[in-house]
Amino acid sequence: MENVGGPLKIQSINPRTGETFGPVFNETTPAELDTAIKSAVSAFASWSHSEPKDRAFSLHAVADAIDANIESLVEIADLETGLGKPRLTGEVGRTTFQIRQFADAISHGDYETTFIDAAVDGPPPVGHPELVRTTVALGPVVVFGASNFPFAFSVLGGDTASALAAGCPVIAKAHPAHPQTSQLVFEIAANLLPVGVLTLIHGVAAGTSVLTNPRITAGAFTGSRSGGRALFDLANKREIPIPFYGELGSVNPVVELKGGATDSPAFATAYLDSLLLGNGQFCTNPSILFAPEGCTILPEIKAQIVEREAGVFLSEATKTLHDKNRALLATLIDGEIFTGKNSSVSGFYTAPQIFVAPITSIKPEALMIEAFGPTGLVLTFTDVDQLIATLLHMEGALTSSIFAPADDPDLIRVGKVLASMSGRVSFNSWPTGVAVTAGQHHGGPYPASTSPLHTSVGLAAITRFLRPVTFQSFPKNIPNLLRNITH
Amino acid sequence: MENVGGPLKIQSINPRTGETFGPVFNETTPAELDTAIKSAVSAFASWSHSEPKDRAFSLHAVADAIDANIESLVEIADLETGLGKPRLTGEVGRTTFQIRQFADAISHGDYETTFIDAAVDGPPPVGHPELVRTTVALGPVVVFGASNFPFAFSVLGGDTASALAAGCPVIAKAHPAHPQTSQLVFEIAANLLPVGVLTLIHGVAAGTSVLTNPRITAGAFTGSRSGGRALFDLANKREIPIPFYGELGSVNPVVELKGGATDSPAFATAYLDSLLLGNGQFCTNPSILFAPEGCTILPEIKAQIVEREAGVFLSEATKTLHDKNRALLATLIDGEIFTGKNSSVSGFYTAPQIFVAPITSIKPEALMIEAFGPTGLVLTFTDVDQLIATLLHMEGALTSSIFAPADDPDLIRVGKVLASMSGRVSFNSWPTGVAVTAGQHHGGPYPASTSPLHTSVGLAAITRFLRPVTFQSFPKNIPNLLRNITH
Repeated sequence: MENVGGPLKIQSINPRTGETFGPVFNETTPAELDTAIKSAVSAFASWSHSEPKDRAFSLHAVADAIDANIESLVEIADLETGLGKPRLTGEVGRTTFQIRQFADAISHGDYETTFIDAAVDGPPPVGHPELVRTTVALGPVVVFGASNFPFAFSVLGGDTASALAAGCPVIAKAHPAHPQTSQLVFEIAANLLPVGVLTLIHGVAAGTSVLTNPRITAGAFTGSRSGGRALFDLANKREIPIPFYGELGSVNPVVELKGGATDSPAFATAYLDSLLLGNGQFCTNPSILFAPEGCTILPEIKAQIVEREAGVFLSEATKTLHDKNRALLATLIDGEIFTGKNSSVSGFYTAPQIFVAPITSIKPEALMIEAFGPTGLVLTFTDVDQLIATLLHMEGALTSSIFAPADDPDLIRVGKVLASMSGRVSFNSWPTGVAVTAGQHHGGPYPASTSPLHTSVGLAAITRFLRPVTFQSFPKNIPNLLRNITH
Repeated sequence: MENVGGPLKIQSINPRTGETFGPVFNETTPAELDTAIKSAVSAFASWSHSEPKDRAFSLHAVADAIDANIESLVEIADLETGLGKPRLTGEVGRTTFQIRQFADAISHGDYETTFIDAAVDGPPPVGHPELVRTTVALGPVVVFGASNFPFAFSVLGGDTASALAAGCPVIAKAHPAHPQTSQLVFEIAANLLPVGVLTLIHGVAAGTSVLTNPRITAGAFTGSRSGGRALFDLANKREIPIPFYGELGSVNPVVELKGGATDSPAFATAYLDSLLLGNGQFCTNPSILFAPEGCTILPEIKAQIVEREAGVFLSEATKTLHDKNRALLATLIDGEIFTGKNSSVSGFYTAPQIFVAPITSIKPEALMIEAFGPTGLVLTFTDVDQLIATLLHMEGALTSSIFAPADDPDLIRVGKVLASMSGRVSFNSWPTGVAVTAGQHHGGPYPASTSPLHTSVGLAAITRFLRPVTFQSFPKNIPNLLRNITH
């Protein structure tokens, strides 16, 4: 897809067949990047200075236009990603929902907090002048689209929508696995936004060039740990480092405590549904299920997985990496292997597979491998101390789940461990399916996020692109005039 | 002070005489560091899990004990820093004020925000389960003390107080310019806190060793750009990177617009007072005064500075660096030089000096040199476009000021430029003197801060040490039990 030794060409590949199709996209050239950055810098003046309700109006227009084009968008995205039309239709709905949510939030002033700290008479430290603490938009930002969400985490996904709502122009780097979808989304939106507020670029080198440009003030990314870490390092090595909001994936623990009412055939079905949703290509995948030794779901899982058919990977690269990680897991786990079906004859498919082993039998490295595909790990434990000791060997996670009766004596101490290592903890519910709402936190300790204080999903994502400024001793109304930047 | 080629020895030096005095401190050994980190990790369990009112009680006890020892603290700090007893007495007051402020804030639940996002029926994206978004303490953190604030930005300064209030144990690295003050503050406080909640270490290598330890979850620093950047890089290069809240200093612009009522002899006096406060060793120093050409304050500054006596530097290193930066400025500025007096015969003194030049005559590099001492730069401008073009060449600043009538036609456009480049903008007031209050923002674009979204002064500083977690679908009251981490 990305050739070494010549100008980069990007072309769609149908993952169901392995065949290339459609137009060839050239990597954005240095001259085009220069124009894109100048245009974003220039747009920052008026976009960040605009009334929130005017930005909200533009965002609503964009969301409406995306919805109006849903059929052609889903059509091309399905050909490029193999994710299937029902899922992609839902994803477009989620994408426009979150664009409108950010638009409505800024219209209501939800995240443009201004705190007036009235003057206090007397000498310091008690006495002080009036201080008005508010926020300003950071500046132009770069957003890197994800492979597994061609809409919700791509050109007009949550990162872009939250940055635009905050007042920051966005240069969006298309993911090479869905260039046509990216281009179409961009073309639908660009006409409805002022020049320079949204620009699309193609190519890895173009993306890193923008990230390291001195005029860019933040980066946002959803994708692999290796790619995200490389970009994080670039952002931090700049002469002027910038915030880099990377969501680098996650190995998510799901704990079933002994005696849970959930220990049933239906639980095994729900586990496999969550694990294999989107062919397992979710950062919220239930990577490791910790189950009590002797629980009845193991035979159920074994019986059910043989009926599960291989799903298609997003790309050859995704399949190759997954297969490599699965092979690596096999060397680290001494247990049983349950395998599903693969009746494909072409394209990028791998049969689902589940490793089952006693918690004591695995090498700790196995706890850190995100397979990113239809591969599950079920670890059986005999006591909760053993379970906790293993959980403490895991890395930071986006999400975790605990299945137990509400009065289980171990619920609190296991729940605390899960809270210490993850950004979201769910009770008696599976980790896939991330609600797009103000109470969401989609982040967590590294590598779940490069910035554990921030979320990439839900309304709080907007705070990533707003910087506080305090105005001291100004006449009333002046801080409001100053908070939007016009150069 | 820190010898190469042998075990590090740290001893106080009286900057007024250049003589060493008092006990010799050894660099904290690797074995001691290991104990300190284990102790902090162990203390994290109970400290972060404690009731906020119990942490507040301990913090009040610490503040009371510091106040009770103010005479001996000021005595030793004055010998080590030369800052003078009045200033140091005030600084102790500010330090205990802010410890109590954080204590009271957590007692009132001000920054322990819990947002309950009620369940909404229906399919996603509109429907979602109940989500409770709250925060948990990050974990053990390391705080690097500053040279110029032996109390307010050192062992028990704002970084430490905010981290302790958040529930994070602190390993504090003493600044080598005031080891005895650091030790005394630590000994007063340590007895009043649970074991491991506060540990003092000495030495640069010890500090970097703690920062790069996998069990440490954040770093906070106030000091030089070179030192801070080196630590920022270490924090980001870790296998598991951690937030690093560095305040690396700042070149702060002060703008006087033409026709300001402030163009008076008293204005010149106020400028010199702000510039030379603490011998100019403030990160909020009015580094560059932009004044209209032909303004009447220039002859006033010239007349008044010859009466200003040299102040003493915090250390030989501080004086050496300042003198080097002043010499560098002299090569970049083609203008007049006004110099004050220096009647010292020993110790670390340099006469105050002010460079005055037309804005058009200087090399842009001059706008990026923080002299950190009694050196000022006055740049005269003939029109506001020229002024703005020059401001846009400056780097991020902690603070800026604008002196003008409230109805000055240029107030808004110049104020917007200042807001775009600094963390605090003051109207008709000088930048020195940072109010310790909820409305404060002491930060700003790099290099003012390595984390432009956060402040190191004022109540919002606590948010740097709290990480969001969302609890999904838990029975009522359980999230409250889970939010404090106990391992």
